[in-house]
Amino acid sequence: MRALEEKIRNEGIIAEGNVLKVSSFLNHQIDVPFMQTVGEEFYRLFRDEKIDKILTIEASGIGVACLTATYFNVPVVFAKKTKSKNLTDDCYTTKILSFTHGTTYDVMVEKRFIQPGERILVIDDFLAVGNALNGLIELVEAAGAEVVGCGIVIEKAWQQGGQRLREHGIRVESLARIKEMTEEHGCIFCDDDE
Amino acid sequence: MRALEEKIRNEGIIAEGNVLKVSSFLNHQIDVPFMQTVGEEFYRLFRDEKIDKILTIEASGIGVACLTATYFNVPVVFAKKTKSKNLTDDCYTTKILSFTHGTTYDVMVEKRFIQPGERILVIDDFLAVGNALNGLIELVEAAGAEVVGCGIVIEKAWQQGGQRLREHGIRVESLARIKEMTEEHGCIFCDDDE
Repeated sequence: MRALEEKIRNEGIIAEGNVLKVSSFLNHQIDVPFMQTVGEEFYRLFRDEKIDKILTIEASGIGVACLTATYFNVPVVFAKKTKSKNLTDDCYTTKILSFTHGTTYDVMVEKRFIQPGERILVIDDFLAVGNALNGLIELVEAAGAEVVGCGIVIEKAWQQGGQRLREHGIRVESLARIKEMTEEHGCIFCDDDE
Repeated sequence: MRALEEKIRNEGIIAEGNVLKVSSFLNHQIDVPFMQTVGEEFYRLFRDEKIDKILTIEASGIGVACLTATYFNVPVVFAKKTKSKNLTDDCYTTKILSFTHGTTYDVMVEKRFIQPGERILVIDDFLAVGNALNGLIELVEAAGAEVVGCGIVIEKAWQQGGQRLREHGIRVESLARIKEMTEEHGCIFCDDDE
């Protein structure tokens, strides 16, 4: 999605430790009119699939998941990162290692919100090594539901999480795929040569 | 908003410690088509004000804030609850006491995302004692911006956070105001006698 690549080039900040900060439109401030066009693009890609529900993970996934859901007219479920008083014990849980923060956290979804046989579109903001996405896919599979595909806003393609998922037959659609990223030269995208 | 009161009556679960669980449409699963009507109602209430930006707090506020923002065509900023690697030091911060969890947490917004003079609509899922909302208002005032009003999905009216804010001249619009809530009798809303 060229408009997204342009947005990343113009507003993204590359920081130490391979961090790409897109706080101006995705991770802290959400440029809602722009992110609606992102949601519309996910709809264009997955509109021929029957989608029952969108699954994402708090916090940064929620905005893009909700805006995407307006096109599919389906609910969003967001997996929660910590056990809170407001969750019942009747949850699917998994552990996710945060590559950015170097810590492991528990992620859970109440069982009643993913039913066996449901067709789930997983949406997330970033895909790098794929830990978060793998965790979400595990939750769907634990429920006996089906992952129709994964819609990712930004994939750090050199970190191979997306490649591994595709090799396992999972449809992963990333709207911006970064091939290389340096503070000096900025982002180079996989389709820059096309 | 009668449809919201009905939704709370039908799907809300009242749990120990004055907790109202609305996980089926707001706090864990988000009923996006329904929450779009909530966003539309906030638009109806605040459409005559010039709104530059919507401010909310992660995680449960993000969905309703984004869906509301589609009607106003403005960005959303969500305040963050913990200091993460992806935040610069250039932040407005405040401390919020969580009534539900009994802990204090830091909340922050990067300074560049609230500019002096901006007219801010604050959106949140719940208003009870008002700690979270007061924290968000503090952040806006620290930035030299203006709180145009607060749009709340569910107010626990007996906990008086809303009353105190209104007494201070802040416009608070809550779409469902609960007067009383018991496991035995469910929710009684402030407008049930009207």
